[in-house]
Amino acid sequence: MNAIGKTVGARVSVLDVGVASELERHPLLRAAKVRRGTDDLSRGLAMSREEAARAVMAGAGVAEELLESGGVDLLVTGDMGIGNTTPAACLISAVTESPPAKTTGRGTSIDDETLKLKVNVVEEALELHAPDPEDPLGVLAAIGGLEHAAIVGVILTGAVYGVPVVLDGVVSNSSALVAHALAPYSVGYIIAGHRSAEPGARIALKHLELKPLLDLDMRLGEGTGGLLAVPLVQAAARTLAEMTTLEEIGFG
Amino acid sequence: MNAIGKTVGARVSVLDVGVASELERHPLLRAAKVRRGTDDLSRGLAMSREEAARAVMAGAGVAEELLESGGVDLLVTGDMGIGNTTPAACLISAVTESPPAKTTGRGTSIDDETLKLKVNVVEEALELHAPDPEDPLGVLAAIGGLEHAAIVGVILTGAVYGVPVVLDGVVSNSSALVAHALAPYSVGYIIAGHRSAEPGARIALKHLELKPLLDLDMRLGEGTGGLLAVPLVQAAARTLAEMTTLEEIGFG
Repeated sequence: MNAIGKTVGARVSVLDVGVASELERHPLLRAAKVRRGTDDLSRGLAMSREEAARAVMAGAGVAEELLESGGVDLLVTGDMGIGNTTPAACLISAVTESPPAKTTGRGTSIDDETLKLKVNVVEEALELHAPDPEDPLGVLAAIGGLEHAAIVGVILTGAVYGVPVVLDGVVSNSSALVAHALAPYSVGYIIAGHRSAEPGARIALKHLELKPLLDLDMRLGEGTGGLLAVPLVQAAARTLAEMTTLEEIGFG
Repeated sequence: MNAIGKTVGARVSVLDVGVASELERHPLLRAAKVRRGTDDLSRGLAMSREEAARAVMAGAGVAEELLESGGVDLLVTGDMGIGNTTPAACLISAVTESPPAKTTGRGTSIDDETLKLKVNVVEEALELHAPDPEDPLGVLAAIGGLEHAAIVGVILTGAVYGVPVVLDGVVSNSSALVAHALAPYSVGYIIAGHRSAEPGARIALKHLELKPLLDLDMRLGEGTGGLLAVPLVQAAARTLAEMTTLEEIGFG
């Protein structure tokens, strides 16, 4: 992230909404821990509605702070979280009504056996909660992660400020589904940066009618794929703003 | 090109090796006209061997000048030429031994009728010259364009200097086949920037075992697709150079 961020002129900001341990202070770290991790979403709510809302607001807060700080006119989402492709698959299945076997992927390269277990967990969670896409905050609370909730807040804030929000991998993609469910117009500010190797990513982006700019077989999350797409967005903006058209030089 | 070049920190350099008219002087234009356009490749040699060699040397010269000027550590190829996807298809068919119907595309969106004529021209040229891939300069002279020859020179010079050469569309791809035929090791310095919509591009890149970084449905040539890939190359280099590995932080 840092190496790529330097290349594309982006600054990195890390928001802790739910790491299970205490983190040392760091100039780039914003502490807004809502709780230490989530509960087992296959046995009960991952978190309360209020906690989901607080995580959304934490994401919105950091986005707002960055956008108000001057010089930031584009946001890139990314994430680090343990086991967070499971809630991503849950969210994608819940919102797009796709079967868990199609939305659940190998995350950090799990084997066939573990993948089967993972699909089961997603199925159990969906059966237990029967999440209602008409109640996006309830969906987040039942089967989301704190990072997913925070990314929802980042996306919504980008839309409010009218700046592009470039998505990274499947966790961002699944969060975008929730943002879209909360505020459909927000999708107009979303740019799919990179196609995650996770199968659910394709389903989520199709639902949002977004086509990723990059497809480089990366599967990191963390924002790396989204950051790599930033120069493409910048070049497109500059071309629109600066390029002489054929009409302008009398060719039209 | 200029708008995208500014975004990615590239300078644009234009080399005239064969425009059919005289061009006004311009600070970015390097004049090295070998001749005014080529002859009809379906009826005779496109140019003489000596002319092909001079165009290769003109491309090599501008590449050398740029690399010696300081601050340039990567080259991007591009082209502007009228009708130059026809020689591109000829070169791709000649080197990869693929039928013209598979290597010939619609260029600037020609209709079915014109496409059929274009395939015929490529077939006639290949029948007339029976170009021998073992004689790459002869191939260029018989069925190449002056811009193809110049790009061959740029690629070879990049390889000599050990800097990456990022290819743009099908004209660059077809030139890379000739560079590879002349000096097989040069392909190690070539990066396929963007997959052209022209069908021959796919065939050329497969022959070179190169996978394009971008696939954005662009079909401009001129270097735009190659330029857009530059930040990806920069980010990859910076990641290799700067990123702490898991081993280095005691995780390995």
